[in-house]
Amino acid sequence: MYLRSIRARVPPMLTDLYQFTMAYAYWNSGRHNEPAVFELFFRENPFGGGFSLFSGVHDCLLFLRNFRFTEEDVEYLRSVLPPTTNPAFFQFLRELDCSGVTLRAVPEATVVFARVPLMEVDGPLAVVQLLETSLLCLVNYASLVCSNAARFRLAAGPDRKLLELGLRRAQGPDGGLTASRYTHIGGFDMTSNVQAGFLFGIPVAGTMAHSYVTSFSSLEEVWPQTLLPADGEKDPIDLISLTKGLLGRLCELLGAEPAKIHEGELAAFLSYAIAYPGNFLPVIDSYSVSCGLLNFCAVAMALIELGHQPRGVRLDSGDLCRQSVEVRRVFKHCAKQFSVPVFESLIIVGTNNISEQSMMELSKKNEINVVGVGTHLVTCTRQPSLGCVYKLVEVRGSPRMKFSEDPEKSTVPGKKAVYRLLDSEGHPLMDLLCLSEEPPPLAGQTLRCYPLGQEAHLAVTPTQVTCLRQEVFAKGQVRNWSWWMWELDSQLSRSRPGM
Amino acid sequence: MYLRSIRARVPPMLTDLYQFTMAYAYWNSGRHNEPAVFELFFRENPFGGGFSLFSGVHDCLLFLRNFRFTEEDVEYLRSVLPPTTNPAFFQFLRELDCSGVTLRAVPEATVVFARVPLMEVDGPLAVVQLLETSLLCLVNYASLVCSNAARFRLAAGPDRKLLELGLRRAQGPDGGLTASRYTHIGGFDMTSNVQAGFLFGIPVAGTMAHSYVTSFSSLEEVWPQTLLPADGEKDPIDLISLTKGLLGRLCELLGAEPAKIHEGELAAFLSYAIAYPGNFLPVIDSYSVSCGLLNFCAVAMALIELGHQPRGVRLDSGDLCRQSVEVRRVFKHCAKQFSVPVFESLIIVGTNNISEQSMMELSKKNEINVVGVGTHLVTCTRQPSLGCVYKLVEVRGSPRMKFSEDPEKSTVPGKKAVYRLLDSEGHPLMDLLCLSEEPPPLAGQTLRCYPLGQEAHLAVTPTQVTCLRQEVFAKGQVRNWSWWMWELDSQLSRSRPGM
Repeated sequence: MYLRSIRARVPPMLTDLYQFTMAYAYWNSGRHNEPAVFELFFRENPFGGGFSLFSGVHDCLLFLRNFRFTEEDVEYLRSVLPPTTNPAFFQFLRELDCSGVTLRAVPEATVVFARVPLMEVDGPLAVVQLLETSLLCLVNYASLVCSNAARFRLAAGPDRKLLELGLRRAQGPDGGLTASRYTHIGGFDMTSNVQAGFLFGIPVAGTMAHSYVTSFSSLEEVWPQTLLPADGEKDPIDLISLTKGLLGRLCELLGAEPAKIHEGELAAFLSYAIAYPGNFLPVIDSYSVSCGLLNFCAVAMALIELGHQPRGVRLDSGDLCRQSVEVRRVFKHCAKQFSVPVFESLIIVGTNNISEQSMMELSKKNEINVVGVGTHLVTCTRQPSLGCVYKLVEVRGSPRMKFSEDPEKSTVPGKKAVYRLLDSEGHPLMDLLCLSEEPPPLAGQTLRCYPLGQEAHLAVTPTQVTCLRQEVFAKGQVRNWSWWMWELDSQLSRSRPGM
Repeated sequence: MYLRSIRARVPPMLTDLYQFTMAYAYWNSGRHNEPAVFELFFRENPFGGGFSLFSGVHDCLLFLRNFRFTEEDVEYLRSVLPPTTNPAFFQFLRELDCSGVTLRAVPEATVVFARVPLMEVDGPLAVVQLLETSLLCLVNYASLVCSNAARFRLAAGPDRKLLELGLRRAQGPDGGLTASRYTHIGGFDMTSNVQAGFLFGIPVAGTMAHSYVTSFSSLEEVWPQTLLPADGEKDPIDLISLTKGLLGRLCELLGAEPAKIHEGELAAFLSYAIAYPGNFLPVIDSYSVSCGLLNFCAVAMALIELGHQPRGVRLDSGDLCRQSVEVRRVFKHCAKQFSVPVFESLIIVGTNNISEQSMMELSKKNEINVVGVGTHLVTCTRQPSLGCVYKLVEVRGSPRMKFSEDPEKSTVPGKKAVYRLLDSEGHPLMDLLCLSEEPPPLAGQTLRCYPLGQEAHLAVTPTQVTCLRQEVFAKGQVRNWSWWMWELDSQLSRSRPGM
């Protein structure tokens, strides 16, 4: 469906009006078919960091493949362009497609750096001009949120599971889907977004919200009250009585007052456990963590007595680190006192407005196994836009350059080749920009190069030289089918919910 | 098309997985049809300000009207929910719609305040639970960007024209459309986004980018070189010769060196002017403002000699205020020296990474008529998310409350009525929350009320009392057709590009 709806998501009209007025002026002066080359790059690494993950290439390919104006589009353009526009221009638009466009791009989710041309769009001047805004729109946020996810992953370390849950804070439905998709590529394990799971095959996760807990007020609302043991060979057991007994023993063990137990919360936990005995992972701070923890332990022990496997708890407010340590202590205490070794392997999920900063703080003493991140991940609070630009570097084989009142906005002219030089251990040394007509650097040969914006030159001897970009679209077709198939593959690899 | 594609944009699967696991647990315990009430509100006014404009209501109505699972959706859910899920639950999902849901909401783009329930969603517990994430996703960004636009409008004052051009920096295609739509509602006059013009009837604007200018290198690329006078009664005139003559006189007048004129830029301006003689508004800082300004003035004067009306210039880098003052000075000087009164009414467009702060600074001495805003507007840099929440306040007629380890996350229980009290001049005094069963406040009668979070009470005597929310959806239907029709109307009111 995502594939089918690309025309609806990214019609060629999703661009700035000036692309059409410029296209008309090119057409009017007979220049529309002159071969031109645009480059796409960003000027500064995002988040004050040292890298970005370039993403959105697949969407660009789908966009180029489907680039066609409908009669309705053309009629609208006729109504908004100046009335002096030559009607033959609209016929030109009706017949336009991207069959003359060649796209060279770095592969999806490559680690890239500022000022390196990541895409080269080569084709008839008027067409490649029209593509500007749509291509920028498709790569800017995808790359930003993918890079942000990678930073969260670096801050979290390799072992902790990361869950994206930003749908409600994203820039609308499609923003939410883009976030789920590219944070998964950037290092998140799971998403809460069901549609993203459906479309992209990302593992989905989630169990309950506070509203579920607060919707219950008494044990009378629990129905059915019984649960079959996991082996299915015995009669259903009254889970309420069983849990009440365990709760009494737990209060004794932990020195808690039974009167402080919130009956509605206990009812909610029991009811959920009866519905999903193998997926019991409640949120335990709807009233207070100490109350929620007692209720969890009682229900979890009852489940274990029936041969089911509880999963863990979610903490959603307050000091997650401190709470997780206390929760773990209680789990271990129970495991020992009640001889329930399952309690040793319960997981703790933390979700409370996690930022990259607080993710780094989580590396302090804590017992959290899974971290759910929403707002700061999908809105990229620290820097909510990447700022990729699309600049003309060549027309009819001759280089083009833009100067500017802001010197950093000036461009580097000419059609280029981009090489990544690697050292003897396979580590990247540098990305080298050459004019495309220059001979490529050779492995084992020392070359002299000039770091951008500096006067002095460097001598470097690469052990290995790779072309950073590949031709991915030409003559109206996606050229690298393995990438393209990845898209379809991912939709087939459906998986059961984690967490 | 926007209307038709709402199912594709916002399927009922665009929600968090836990909504489904909770819905199942409700269903499993026979509670899914219990009447429940959720409230939607935000906890703090955005951008450290005093208000928000609540938006996204129309999209919510479309979503509710179209809420239906497809067979494909249900099959996916079956694959990700635990295998113990009772198959009858999927039949329940197949038959589900929003016919039992009632939505009360404040009208689109109402000025609202923190902690006031802006939407009340009333219906069967399992259904209103499922709606949570989608409704939040539809109102959060819409309200945020609409409020941000209103702040830019307040900073700009009522007279300056505001142009939204954030598509390339938004969270993907749909984020860009949402931004164009709701910044228009929030006070922007125009957008650069053609698809937004097409779908929502927003006036579109734009003329040329730097790439157009840098694509030209010599006057030989100008074709045709002639232009018909506006009255159409004379023969075509050689615009290049005419402009060259004027350029010489301009250089003399302004003490500029003809050698410093960039021929490519002059060619670009001439070519555009020949294509669109009534829409000539070039960007003049592709090389330097002083060079661009000379070229503009020469071409503009040539257009005027042929009876055409140039429009103005765009500045896109450097100190916009200072440059605009200089540009205006030159315009006035030319108007006088060359007796071209049209030069008195040329417009200056400024676009250079404008933030709310720099918009306020623009209120200092400057000559900018139209301000284009992109990144900071659509990404809401100062606060990139609003944080609306959706909280259960009543089940089966009895109030529900959530406590929290973070006290500000606790909720105010019970189904409520919300009144806006006005004083004798029609100004709002306060928004009053009552339980829905309490008698409404009456105009002219003093009432005692308690500001949220404070102990002391206030006495207030409203001159007028209005209900802040209206019933906009019930029994599966949008109830207020005038709103709904607004959507269709807007698509018919197409307009020519402004700026």
